[in-house]
Amino acid sequence: MQIKQSQFNKGEEMKHFIRVNMDNLSVSSEEVSQEYALLGGRGLIARIMNQEVLPDCDPWGRHNKIIIATGFFSGTSALSSCRISVGGKSPLTGGIKEASSGGAAGNRLGRLGVKAIICEGKPREKKTYLIRLDRRGAEIREDAALAGLTNYETVERLHAQYGDKVAIISIGKAGEMRYANSTVAVTDAEGRPCRHAGRGGLGSVLGTKGIKAIVVDDEGTDPVPMKDEETFKQIVKEHAKTLKEDKGLILLLSTYGIAGAVNMNNEMGGLPTRNFREGRFEGVENITGERMAELRETRGGKMHACMPTCVIGCSPIYHDKDGNYLTSGFEYESHAMLGSNLGIDDLDGIAEMDRLCDEYGLDTIETGATLAVCAEAGLMDFGDSRKAKELINEMGQGSLMGRVLGQGAVIAGRVLGVSRVAAVKGQGMPAHEPRIFKATGVTLATSPMGADHTAGLVFNPGIGPEEAVDISLQAQAATALLDSTGCCSISYGTLGLPIVKNLLNAQYGLELTDQDVIDIGRNVLEEEKRFNREAGITEAHNRLPEFFFEETLPPLNASLGITPEQLKEVK
Amino acid sequence: MQIKQSQFNKGEEMKHFIRVNMDNLSVSSEEVSQEYALLGGRGLIARIMNQEVLPDCDPWGRHNKIIIATGFFSGTSALSSCRISVGGKSPLTGGIKEASSGGAAGNRLGRLGVKAIICEGKPREKKTYLIRLDRRGAEIREDAALAGLTNYETVERLHAQYGDKVAIISIGKAGEMRYANSTVAVTDAEGRPCRHAGRGGLGSVLGTKGIKAIVVDDEGTDPVPMKDEETFKQIVKEHAKTLKEDKGLILLLSTYGIAGAVNMNNEMGGLPTRNFREGRFEGVENITGERMAELRETRGGKMHACMPTCVIGCSPIYHDKDGNYLTSGFEYESHAMLGSNLGIDDLDGIAEMDRLCDEYGLDTIETGATLAVCAEAGLMDFGDSRKAKELINEMGQGSLMGRVLGQGAVIAGRVLGVSRVAAVKGQGMPAHEPRIFKATGVTLATSPMGADHTAGLVFNPGIGPEEAVDISLQAQAATALLDSTGCCSISYGTLGLPIVKNLLNAQYGLELTDQDVIDIGRNVLEEEKRFNREAGITEAHNRLPEFFFEETLPPLNASLGITPEQLKEVK
Repeated sequence: MQIKQSQFNKGEEMKHFIRVNMDNLSVSSEEVSQEYALLGGRGLIARIMNQEVLPDCDPWGRHNKIIIATGFFSGTSALSSCRISVGGKSPLTGGIKEASSGGAAGNRLGRLGVKAIICEGKPREKKTYLIRLDRRGAEIREDAALAGLTNYETVERLHAQYGDKVAIISIGKAGEMRYANSTVAVTDAEGRPCRHAGRGGLGSVLGTKGIKAIVVDDEGTDPVPMKDEETFKQIVKEHAKTLKEDKGLILLLSTYGIAGAVNMNNEMGGLPTRNFREGRFEGVENITGERMAELRETRGGKMHACMPTCVIGCSPIYHDKDGNYLTSGFEYESHAMLGSNLGIDDLDGIAEMDRLCDEYGLDTIETGATLAVCAEAGLMDFGDSRKAKELINEMGQGSLMGRVLGQGAVIAGRVLGVSRVAAVKGQGMPAHEPRIFKATGVTLATSPMGADHTAGLVFNPGIGPEEAVDISLQAQAATALLDSTGCCSISYGTLGLPIVKNLLNAQYGLELTDQDVIDIGRNVLEEEKRFNREAGITEAHNRLPEFFFEETLPPLNASLGITPEQLKEVK
Repeated sequence: MQIKQSQFNKGEEMKHFIRVNMDNLSVSSEEVSQEYALLGGRGLIARIMNQEVLPDCDPWGRHNKIIIATGFFSGTSALSSCRISVGGKSPLTGGIKEASSGGAAGNRLGRLGVKAIICEGKPREKKTYLIRLDRRGAEIREDAALAGLTNYETVERLHAQYGDKVAIISIGKAGEMRYANSTVAVTDAEGRPCRHAGRGGLGSVLGTKGIKAIVVDDEGTDPVPMKDEETFKQIVKEHAKTLKEDKGLILLLSTYGIAGAVNMNNEMGGLPTRNFREGRFEGVENITGERMAELRETRGGKMHACMPTCVIGCSPIYHDKDGNYLTSGFEYESHAMLGSNLGIDDLDGIAEMDRLCDEYGLDTIETGATLAVCAEAGLMDFGDSRKAKELINEMGQGSLMGRVLGQGAVIAGRVLGVSRVAAVKGQGMPAHEPRIFKATGVTLATSPMGADHTAGLVFNPGIGPEEAVDISLQAQAATALLDSTGCCSISYGTLGLPIVKNLLNAQYGLELTDQDVIDIGRNVLEEEKRFNREAGITEAHNRLPEFFFEETLPPLNASLGITPEQLKEVK
């Protein structure tokens, strides 16, 4: 179906849902009602899921939906504000899931006036489809040539076909093969499929609907409408000035990337090492952000912004030892989960693993957690990056072993007979040690998202067990807010709330208070928990693996200090 | 540890818990307090689990326990009253589990005065242990020679060592390899490991504790104490007379075994066929109980009682075409789940599959449900018994494919990319068609046991959706009662309640009313649901697979008529 140009780009505030129905291969556009004015990204997903999706549906069945939602400011000049949220019922956790990603798509979707793409139903035949959006409308096309391509192959082909400027959302073979470990990839500013809505296995939800890629072309669109353009511009200008003048964390991140945290966490004794057995890694200096920066000196590569409107650029482009491009969007979680937590200190090897994950559409966190299970099972030795790559390739190739590992750490543990599986609510834990970062531990145990690195991390190792719950809940609400705005947590950080409020007021002509904005985050969590309850995920699932309660963490001999009962009391 | 003879067999009513602690390899005996007087089998398990086991523990970890409980009348002359209940937190459902079995062990445990064996903890080293009980006491022995043996090999070895008269409880390789599909086998009257506490994967819970077998020797024990022996004997005598004079169901069962239901269910259009796609099987006449009886005429084999005190003998001993023993305890569920539901009409092939399952300690129901997933995935054709046997052998051998399938139908479906998986709460559905037997459908969806053939079946196809819930709940409570008594549902059936009441009053000197006895069953369900709630299993998990709601069942074109919402309202 073709949607008229006017529907997309009519110079008014009205935004649209693009509804992609794979039952009958039709596309329609809906004007978004007033109810959705303060809903974006993660919050919009929670609302739509509660309204439209039966919580106990099969995540891979025709009743699940996959939603790609923009934030409040997508397409505007607000800094780093065009992350997209991808959501649905997760095949990994069995609950609601939102995974967000930077990259180029959010900005373009915003300029097209798209508030969300809602993909529903399931095609009768197993075919490979492409969704294409531009200012004239949206359409579904069958494109058999895309079947089985890696993400890099997919975007290369689609760029050749639709031009270099389009943004592409795609899935790799993992999503096509219905792996619970499968991402939704988003092209970055360079057009590479290196940004991923990684967690929860949402790639496979797109895959079961037969959708291999979404091409977003914003050519010829007008600027996003703005109630008070002057004020908006002024806020952005001041925000940029603050970020550029920062000589602390922001400078660190723009120099070393998020992998700058490798060294810090190691110093604090909380760098997950060998499947969360230790908190410091003897090979740490080889896998730090600092080490990446050193290598850039001789090999090339650079720090870059993953999306338009970013003035920080915390994403590294990583070259191999011959100076050729190897991977980008190579972040902390990958360094730690594919590095220290596997006992691997070979940075090139880790980068190659990261590239393989990007190619196949595998989440590096779940992949690292799964490989740790493989090491426990004796399928690889801790420290063996060659064997680790082999196992990732098995996933990409879809061998039986690959299919087992592709279902994630928990299923791999069951099949391989391993009990020491670092996972919560079915999802592998990210590289954050609950025994050092106790508030983060509470987040990992209690978030409706399962163990997730974007659910409310708290990096303060000084927080005791008694205050951990309150601090975690605050962080969870703040994160839920930020994930609803489309704003990047680095550019907005913990101090971004007033900026978000002011931008909202200027863009939409509102008079929101701080509390109104705080409430957005809290409401999102409530909606998510409602969905989960009906899906059968309750406080009883607020669990950490038993070994976190029973082992102290060397070398600081840190213990958790939080009881299983305390976690279950977190509503 | 040796327990003194007097503790076991002192001519009083006091019974014992034998507590087997695998942390420190010790055994102790506890006199059972008054609180447990009206608790046996399934009810006793529910009570102990709620008192002693953290509901969110890892089923395969050291905090789970496995309990082997006798019923109220074990060791007495009450007819068919010495089934044992095996229970713990199930690795398959994640909730509480009781699986019961006939065979020779219950009677001997009753004579030893054992109310329950509670196995807890986990040995530090992976070794193979044996528990031995006789009138002098109980002990743990390491016996490395048992490791990796099949159930038949295990009992052969143990009979040679401890004499032909001992009863043996054992696990096969499935339990040792930590399969979620793994049974606890119990030797029958002939000393063969053909009775199984099959469901829920409890074999692997015993396996993770390092316990390969339990040898029960009742030599030299005295009769079980009895308050009013005359009345007890009189009740038993009348009960036996009633059963022997029955020319209906009881005669049918003693002639054709439970497999007599194959033909009946097919007639009613509710014989699961090709993964619940159809309700009648074109090859049905080759796999019926009647066919088994015909074959016995030429091949030999016989109907026999699986336990002492049974006057029916519904268990078939099945010979192969050369007249040699092949398998026994070859029941309806195996005929249907390994037969019609796989499109297989080769009875010898099905019997061989049954034997393989007994050898490896695999549940025939879960195995059939898993093989149906294999057929959906294209790993075998429906109807191919040769390939089906190959896949069962993979499970027994522990190949990677075997390990995947050994985790049961749900995990197999995930790994193999199959959505059409007939399972509830993680457990494969038994051979009962919810669209024909609607009250049974409600039981399968709502029982705290998950989809289970011993949770309250109702064989009446005339029950409509509106009355199905009430009738199911009555059947669930009646079954929970019977599973607490140790009595066989065939000998006691739906009319057994007054007999149970009278026996209880005579044995223990009580004055129970009908309502008291009915309440036992209801209380058991309550306790089980309490455990499950805290384990995270709620009404939200009262689900049937989506296809039952969406497809009508040929040839009667029966639809379910019950909504997902109705199932979730069943508390």
